[in-house]
Amino acid sequence: MLSEFSLIDRFFARRAAVARTSSTPGDTLGIGDDCALLAPRAGEMLAISTDMLVEGRHFFADVDPRALGHKALAVNLSDLAAMGARPQAFTLAFSLPKADEAWLRAFSDGLFALAERHDCELIGGDTTGGPLNLCITVFGSVPPRMALRRDAAQPGDDIWVSGTLGDARAGLGVQRGEWSAGAADAATFRAALERPEPRIALGLALRGIAHAALDLSDGLAGDLLHILERSSLRASVDVDAIPRSGALRHLAPAIQQRCTLAGGDDYELCFTAPAAARAAVQAAAQDAAVPVTRIGTISALTASAERPAIAWRNAAGAPLTLTLQGFDHFHAE
Amino acid sequence: MLSEFSLIDRFFARRAAVARTSSTPGDTLGIGDDCALLAPRAGEMLAISTDMLVEGRHFFADVDPRALGHKALAVNLSDLAAMGARPQAFTLAFSLPKADEAWLRAFSDGLFALAERHDCELIGGDTTGGPLNLCITVFGSVPPRMALRRDAAQPGDDIWVSGTLGDARAGLGVQRGEWSAGAADAATFRAALERPEPRIALGLALRGIAHAALDLSDGLAGDLLHILERSSLRASVDVDAIPRSGALRHLAPAIQQRCTLAGGDDYELCFTAPAAARAAVQAAAQDAAVPVTRIGTISALTASAERPAIAWRNAAGAPLTLTLQGFDHFHAE
Repeated sequence: MLSEFSLIDRFFARRAAVARTSSTPGDTLGIGDDCALLAPRAGEMLAISTDMLVEGRHFFADVDPRALGHKALAVNLSDLAAMGARPQAFTLAFSLPKADEAWLRAFSDGLFALAERHDCELIGGDTTGGPLNLCITVFGSVPPRMALRRDAAQPGDDIWVSGTLGDARAGLGVQRGEWSAGAADAATFRAALERPEPRIALGLALRGIAHAALDLSDGLAGDLLHILERSSLRASVDVDAIPRSGALRHLAPAIQQRCTLAGGDDYELCFTAPAAARAAVQAAAQDAAVPVTRIGTISALTASAERPAIAWRNAAGAPLTLTLQGFDHFHAE
Repeated sequence: MLSEFSLIDRFFARRAAVARTSSTPGDTLGIGDDCALLAPRAGEMLAISTDMLVEGRHFFADVDPRALGHKALAVNLSDLAAMGARPQAFTLAFSLPKADEAWLRAFSDGLFALAERHDCELIGGDTTGGPLNLCITVFGSVPPRMALRRDAAQPGDDIWVSGTLGDARAGLGVQRGEWSAGAADAATFRAALERPEPRIALGLALRGIAHAALDLSDGLAGDLLHILERSSLRASVDVDAIPRSGALRHLAPAIQQRCTLAGGDDYELCFTAPAAARAAVQAAAQDAAVPVTRIGTISALTASAERPAIAWRNAAGAPLTLTLQGFDHFHAE
């Protein structure tokens, strides 16, 4: 087995150093000291998020390591997008059962391809032996008053989502044999599952326009409820308006509904904005080259005992009773 | 099994929220959103370090969970100490095979007892099922020009260490049956192994006095070499001057040497400072209530082909030839 230091150096530190010389301000300090040194942009704050990915729960043992490198960083960048933060840096800690060079090369290629696309510098990390586990902590910069928080939704806000929902869960179902799909649809689903695209540009474009936002990691039903609980509000959602890919529309309606509402792993943004900002939202989406769809509205709690909740309805406005659970990781479904 | 959300809430988020109300500036945002928001003190930078601890490598499966909670944070705070940074916040990601409430209560008690002592707020995290793995990322604040970096040693500097070295490795040896110790000595060793004390106060007191610093996590021989390599210098170290506890002195001389020089897990500071600053170093140590000992000197490379290295000598100045390896985790020794 490669020693810790040669392993870090070969696949991570050296590449981080190359990225560094081209874009890093003088004061920052990256890999190789006890700590990295980092500051947000002037007048801004650091937005910080951490995610841990475990083999068998968040990915399969035979996952393409390049796709895994992409996804491990993508799910963290997605949290920055949901905050309206601009990516700046990340740390990577991982445990590996053995140091397979081909695997590490592919993993680091996938990781750095995404990192470099977002000017996000690797500034530190830790590697050790052990069951495969990846922990990334990501840092972005955001003006504190512009941050897209979960607790800032307002009564009367529209509810929007970006992209389409449900393809990642559909891909998991195909891999598990829960349902089947044609080759082209299966490829669409697999791409959604393995290579989610963090909506950084959209998050930045929505600064000053959206009220509240989060990224859909655990499924729309559970995630939207986080906004409602933290904002003490209710929502009405038109399930027929929820955007679905052409591939997803080939599956049975009950499966479509399960994948879009309780699927998880979408990494699209769900956000609220005042009705008066509809044109601004559409313009932001166009700037970011990401489609957005209005799926419902936010309302106040009407009685003191009323709890934050989602009222589901169809396109005709008829109420639907849905039994849904949040994602809570692969194993819990 | 407790769901992810109830587990986080019961043992971590609620307690973080309590700590928060007493000491947190208004703009920061902690657990519950996509990202935490954090800024260093005005004019300062964030010092950031991440460490991953894996069962069977960094701790034994039957470790006291309270001690583990302490140590998981302590090893990260130690990196802040080595940078001269003031602790501010941390994130905690962990995977657990099962959610044992008594274990989690003890773990979180150990963790928060240390965190609260250093005003270090839990601002985010992630929990999942999986083999036991703890990943903490810690944030401190430091004026960039005052940071104690590894690359800042100067020819003529004294080399200092804090506290005593080797007790943690001696404790590991007792646990493994490599050697034995009386009950009192074994308790001393075990305390050093399980409850290291991060030298935060000393790191802060050494700002503007020490040139270079790091914390001894992998053993003096390997760690001091990091300073030498990054500063392109050499060192001469008097092995007889290296501070040892009374307990360690009861072991055979060869074991003492192995534990002090290649032991690891000490989490004492090793730093360099100009000879003219000896009184200032001693005053800083007194302020921090941590003993420090001068163990050697830094010198320039004398020829262009010369490599950074440590010349070991005894109290009489006679050169010693030592074959030592760095720590590189439990399994590699």
